Amino acid sequence: MPAKQDDPPRVMALDLPQAVLSEENRAYFAKCQEKLGFIPYVLLAYAHDDAKLTAFAAFYNDLMLGPSGLSKLEREMIAVAVSSVNHCYYCLTAHGAAVRQLSGDPVLGELMAMNYRAAELSPRHRAMLDFAVKLTEAPHQVEEADRAALRKAGFGERDIWDVSAVAAFFNMSNRMASAVDMRPNAQYHSVAR
Amino acid sequence: MPAKQDDPPRVMALDLPQAVLSEENRAYFAKCQEKLGFIPYVLLAYAHDDAKLTAFAAFYNDLMLGPSGLSKLEREMIAVAVSSVNHCYYCLTAHGAAVRQLSGDPVLGELMAMNYRAAELSPRHRAMLDFAVKLTEAPHQVEEADRAALRKAGFGERDIWDVSAVAAFFNMSNRMASAVDMRPNAQYHSVAR
Amino acid sequence: MPAKQDDPPRVMALDLPQAVLSEENRAYFAKCQEKLGFIPYVLLAYAHDDAKLTAFAAFYNDLMLGPSGLSKLEREMIAVAVSSVNHCYYCLTAHGAAVRQLSGDPVLGELMAMNYRAAELSPRHRAMLDFAVKLTEAPHQVEEADRAALRKAGFGERDIWDVSAVAAFFNMSNRMASAVDMRPNAQYHSVAR
Amino acid sequence: MPAKQDDPPRVMALDLPQAVLSEENRAYFAKCQEKLGFIPYVLLAYAHDDAKLTAFAAFYNDLMLGPSGLSKLEREMIAVAVSSVNHCYYCLTAHGAAVRQLSGDPVLGELMAMNYRAAELSPRHRAMLDFAVKLTEAPHQVEEADRAALRKAGFGERDIWDVSAVAAFFNMSNRMASAVDMRPNAQYHSVAR
Amino acid sequence: MPAKQDDPPRVMALDLPQAVLSEENRAYFAKCQEKLGFIPYVLLAYAHDDAKLTAFAAFYNDLMLGPSGLSKLEREMIAVAVSSVNHCYYCLTAHGAAVRQLSGDPVLGELMAMNYRAAELSPRHRAMLDFAVKLTEAPHQVEEADRAALRKAGFGERDIWDVSAVAAFFNMSNRMASAVDMRPNAQYHSVAR
Amino acid sequence: MPAKQDDPPRVMALDLPQAVLSEENRAYFAKCQEKLGFIPYVLLAYAHDDAKLTAFAAFYNDLMLGPSGLSKLEREMIAVAVSSVNHCYYCLTAHGAAVRQLSGDPVLGELMAMNYRAAELSPRHRAMLDFAVKLTEAPHQVEEADRAALRKAGFGERDIWDVSAVAAFFNMSNRMASAVDMRPNAQYHSVAR
Repeated sequence: MPAKQDDPPRVMALDLPQAVLSEENRAYFAKCQEKLGFIPYVLLAYAHDDAKLTAFAAFYNDLMLGPSGLSKLEREMIAVAVSSVNHCYYCLTAHGAAVRQLSGDPVLGELMAMNYRAAELSPRHRAMLDFAVKLTEAPHQVEEADRAALRKAGFGERDIWDVSAVAAFFNMSNRMASAVDMRPNAQYHSVAR
Repeated sequence: MPAKQDDPPRVMALDLPQAVLSEENRAYFAKCQEKLGFIPYVLLAYAHDDAKLTAFAAFYNDLMLGPSGLSKLEREMIAVAVSSVNHCYYCLTAHGAAVRQLSGDPVLGELMAMNYRAAELSPRHRAMLDFAVKLTEAPHQVEEADRAALRKAGFGERDIWDVSAVAAFFNMSNRMASAVDMRPNAQYHSVAR
Repeated sequence: MPAKQDDPPRVMALDLPQAVLSEENRAYFAKCQEKLGFIPYVLLAYAHDDAKLTAFAAFYNDLMLGPSGLSKLEREMIAVAVSSVNHCYYCLTAHGAAVRQLSGDPVLGELMAMNYRAAELSPRHRAMLDFAVKLTEAPHQVEEADRAALRKAGFGERDIWDVSAVAAFFNMSNRMASAVDMRPNAQYHSVAR
Repeated sequence: MPAKQDDPPRVMALDLPQAVLSEENRAYFAKCQEKLGFIPYVLLAYAHDDAKLTAFAAFYNDLMLGPSGLSKLEREMIAVAVSSVNHCYYCLTAHGAAVRQLSGDPVLGELMAMNYRAAELSPRHRAMLDFAVKLTEAPHQVEEADRAALRKAGFGERDIWDVSAVAAFFNMSNRMASAVDMRPNAQYHSVAR
Repeated sequence: MPAKQDDPPRVMALDLPQAVLSEENRAYFAKCQEKLGFIPYVLLAYAHDDAKLTAFAAFYNDLMLGPSGLSKLEREMIAVAVSSVNHCYYCLTAHGAAVRQLSGDPVLGELMAMNYRAAELSPRHRAMLDFAVKLTEAPHQVEEADRAALRKAGFGERDIWDVSAVAAFFNMSNRMASAVDMRPNAQYHSVAR
Repeated sequence: MPAKQDDPPRVMALDLPQAVLSEENRAYFAKCQEKLGFIPYVLLAYAHDDAKLTAFAAFYNDLMLGPSGLSKLEREMIAVAVSSVNHCYYCLTAHGAAVRQLSGDPVLGELMAMNYRAAELSPRHRAMLDFAVKLTEAPHQVEEADRAALRKAGFGERDIWDVSAVAAFFNMSNRMASAVDMRPNAQYHSVAR
């Protein structure tokens, strides 16, 4: 019988002490604790350097929570479909939970993580994920025809930016998580099953 | 908001009526219903032809439940790690549930489905999955050195056969599931979370 | 000058003694010897375990020799085209011989083994092999459009199952042969040249 | 004779008007104009949304110009080697110029863009780029052994974070540039030749 | 039943008339006819332009028949192993025949065409083919360590040139054959079976 | 700060003395020196064997400088786009310079070396490079439809031969350069910037 996974918990494979955090970042962590019941380990990983934590959180929050023609669920669907290509344990776990929670459909989260092509998707969502996955697998082959397919599915210019920005971001985040072996908080596994 | 996935349920994309089943297969289905509470859709998919159902079930049951130096959990771990490479929705769902259930460790099932390299594995299990995944990704490059790595991790000759046979089988099963768009029973999703 | 290949003959790289075979399997081997002049080494490889030999032979014989809308030659063409992608020495040798023999066209066997795209094929055969090879190379990308292409080429629902089942099976068999370094019987090389 | 490339200049393929910029961002653009003689088109591309421009510039400037055990040249070398894998026209042009300029060695910039393996690199730089390129090509295969190779080449824990962060960032930036067809400023081409 | 392949014979897919050949090339063709019983179709394909035929034949004959530390059989083994990676129907057929003929071992030809890793090779031949196949699959990753492996297996500096030159040449020739759909002469199929 | 690249200059990684050259080859080298100001290192690399140098130069000069429906610039564009796929330092440097020089457009050379898809190309040039790059990446998948796309873009039968021949040649040349680590002359870097 294998040992239980992730026990005891650890944040990442690098041995980096936490920095003294700014007041703003301490408040941010307190808010995470209050709203989620935990601080996402990705934030603890960046907390070895206050400036990096600040820059990452600002970038992330604008991207995933800021105003956009894409719903929060749509952004999370992109996050998970991209992370499936890159087999990223952290992001599949954390953002798979978000898809289950935001959609109220536990199966949709599994489908995004396993193979979005097996899901019953609207033409809008299929076009969105096809673009995001092509951008992940073969960025140098993305061209005008790919943008045209998004426009045909109803996406505007700014929406194309946002689909691209979310897909591109998780190609960064997946790699950061793999590079330092970031671990997801255990709580994500049981969310919205 | 996307429509709920897998609603109404269907077994596969091909329009094939169920065959008149033999007494043995009817008894087998009754036993599934009794023990699992449902008949796995993969069996219903094969049930368009009684001989094929019989041959598949015999082959599968010998492989996954028959005597072996590999535990049932180990066989299921191979099944899921292979299915992760092939992004097979059916097998990741059904056999991910089996790993969670047999191990009593919900996180282990997720790790097999997402990226087995992120799991904390014994040298035995790491060698076993490295072999299975190489056999999946580049079968023509599997050679004596790969078998030697299994022997070094404690696997005997028959064990090497069994690791190979399970990995090879799911390369068939993953493709069969994708080819006809086999759907997993909804019950798997909530098992042993 | 390199040493002659496959001399002395051996069945596979694993050191597994033959099991005591059931009467049925002994009869099956006798029939092979009588009809082919030899026992295919794949069967000798499985003969380390009587139950596994029985299950494999039943599964294989239903698939390749049982009733189907696909001719035996068509099933062998799929076997070889799939084995070409996976560079499987055993299956290219044994099933290449079968294509040469069943078609009476030695060149067709070579084309299946080397590059089916270079063959002059009917639209039916081209669609059949395109599906089988995509299922081999990228199973997670096989979708409704791929099944539709088979239907358009005249394949019925059950035929699609059979094309899929043969292609999927050889993705198992190719991997089993590589995993244990199964050797083809020398006789295949000279068949129907 | 083909038409001259990039004439007239354009920033990207999306039709997005520039936002009214904050005072800080206007000052940032003025400083670019003063120091570089132009505003990098990547900044003009983000300028359709003041918040996104702010977040991107903060993240980028901390990463590439902030305190680090990696020199600015080393960070630019990673940027170009990653962009070479992804065939990113924008980043190869802009960051290739930076490598030429920071190193005073025009050939080094070409080597990073074409094939870093052909360069005569110190063990430190070779290890750094091997890690960055593996993280780009196969993030899910990066493991403890890869981090150990960096440590052996003299990189500390924080340095490993920084190598990872730069490589990961350009996997985002390369994809963003391809997704919206970002064009590099013409000036980069002639820098430090 | 599929139509017989390569009937009627044709040289390639391009519709190019034969050029008036120089006396030397007419003599060369006469010599082929006399020694082989046919003119290899690759030469007929180049014969649309006398200068190109001359240059190709000179280059080829120096490479494959000129003085070298590699035997003619070794050069043909490289040709076939490279053509197997590229699935080239013309070259696998013509040079597979050469391997069978020069070695007097029909099985060796099949092994080179199917998977050289399954052959029982001397360390010299294994190193030679490993280098040739890596150069085929990932030329930008060939480095000093790869040349060192050839030296360790007994190859001198000029031998390394020759292994490289043969492998590189068939990467050209395979592509030329595919590009214009060159057909091999039917006679090759039955040589030295 | 890394050491300056390519200092002192060397031709390749193999330790092969120059052969005594024929009068023709000495004259050829003298002409290179006079016209270019240097002897291209690729020629010095082949100069270890007079016959090989002769055959290579004849083949190359017919291909790149001989009569053709493709302009010299078009042939160089193919050379660079192919070399970009193969990440060949020698050919990207030498032929990138040729594109810059023949086109009078420094940016065009960069685009061919980085990602031809980002260039603003005529339909003729796009079709030409799409064919050349497919032939490079997946030669066994080039078929009649690919030739038809060239014909539709205005290429004749002989032109298709020439596009194919140039693309195929650089697949040889790229591999030869990588195999022996051929170095480009330093002069190329500053040509036509």
